[in-house]
This record gives sequence, C-alpha cells and structure tokens, in this order.
Amino acid sequence: MVIVGKKPKMRYVTACITLFNRGEKEILLRARGRSISNCVDVAFLLKKSFYSNLKIKDIAIGYDEAELDENKKRYVSFIEILITK
Amino acid sequence: MVIVGKKPKMRYVTACITLFNRGEKEILLRARGRSISNCVDVAFLLKKSFYSNLKIKDIAIGYDEAELDENKKRYVSFIEILITK
Repeated sequence: MVIVGKKPKMRYVTACITLFNRGEKEILLRARGRSISNCVDVAFLLKKSFYSNLKIKDIAIGYDEAELDENKKRYVSFIEILITK
Repeated sequence: MVIVGKKPKMRYVTACITLFNRGEKEILLRARGRSISNCVDVAFLLKKSFYSNLKIKDIAIGYDEAELDENKKRYVSFIEILITK
C-alpha cells in the first residue's frame, strides 16, 4: 500500500515503481481529504508515463472517523485505488 | 449531473437535494483536479445527513486533456460518482 499525501506526486510515483520492480503485481493507493486528487493524479501519471498497460482494478471511496477531542468527531473522506500492471 | 467545483460543499449538496426532490433517481457527481476531494465529501454529506439509504452506484476516474495554448496540453484528473437513492 502506498499512502498518498501532500508531497510532490513524483515521490509517490517513484514509491510505486519501486514496489513494482520488487515484484508486486498490485498496489493499493490510499489518500484522505485534500490529497484525494493527488492520488488520482498518481494513478494516471503511472499509467501515462511508465506502465501503459496499468489497469485500475478497483476504486473505493468512504469516510474515516477521526476523533479530535473527547467528544468531537470529524469525518474525513478517503479514496482507495487498486492498480495492477 | 452536478459538477462539483470549489464553492462551499453545501451548495452542491443543496443542488443534489433539489434534483432528488424533482424526482431524479440518480445523480452523477463530477469534479476535476483539486475539486475531486470536494466531490467525495459531497457524496458522503448527502448520505450521512440527508439520505441514509443513498447508494454509491458507480465510481469512475480518468483524465481530461485540456489544451492551453497551441501546442501545450495539460492533463486534469477527474472523478465521477453515480449516486442513487
């Protein structure tokens, strides 16, 4: 699994390439909140620039509950993209 | 179809409620680039606060080509979420 955050996209692209080179066949990309768009970009950067046969095997969205204080809860959306080469 | 942009999320939530009240059974939420996370939030705001039976029927991601100048092209990721009540 690669958790996509706010760093430059190429960091996550490189992380995925490393995993594929180690023999992984599938990688789960996961991102929360504002980083969700980064996550989609990473998937398509991989497909466009590195693995033209890359398949988007599954996409899931949902929300995590993040407990802030004792009684306050916040909801954060997430996306999970399963890619396979 | 509701195109989700950078306005406050409740605007898009309200737009969807209006469509459902007019008799629509399905709504396609679409967003590009940075607004993708907003789009996921809108889907779950609707589900959590208004339609507990709301179903995420389909999720698609992809990228649009946006031509800037004569020869310059940019790619913008998009998401489409099909919701049904």
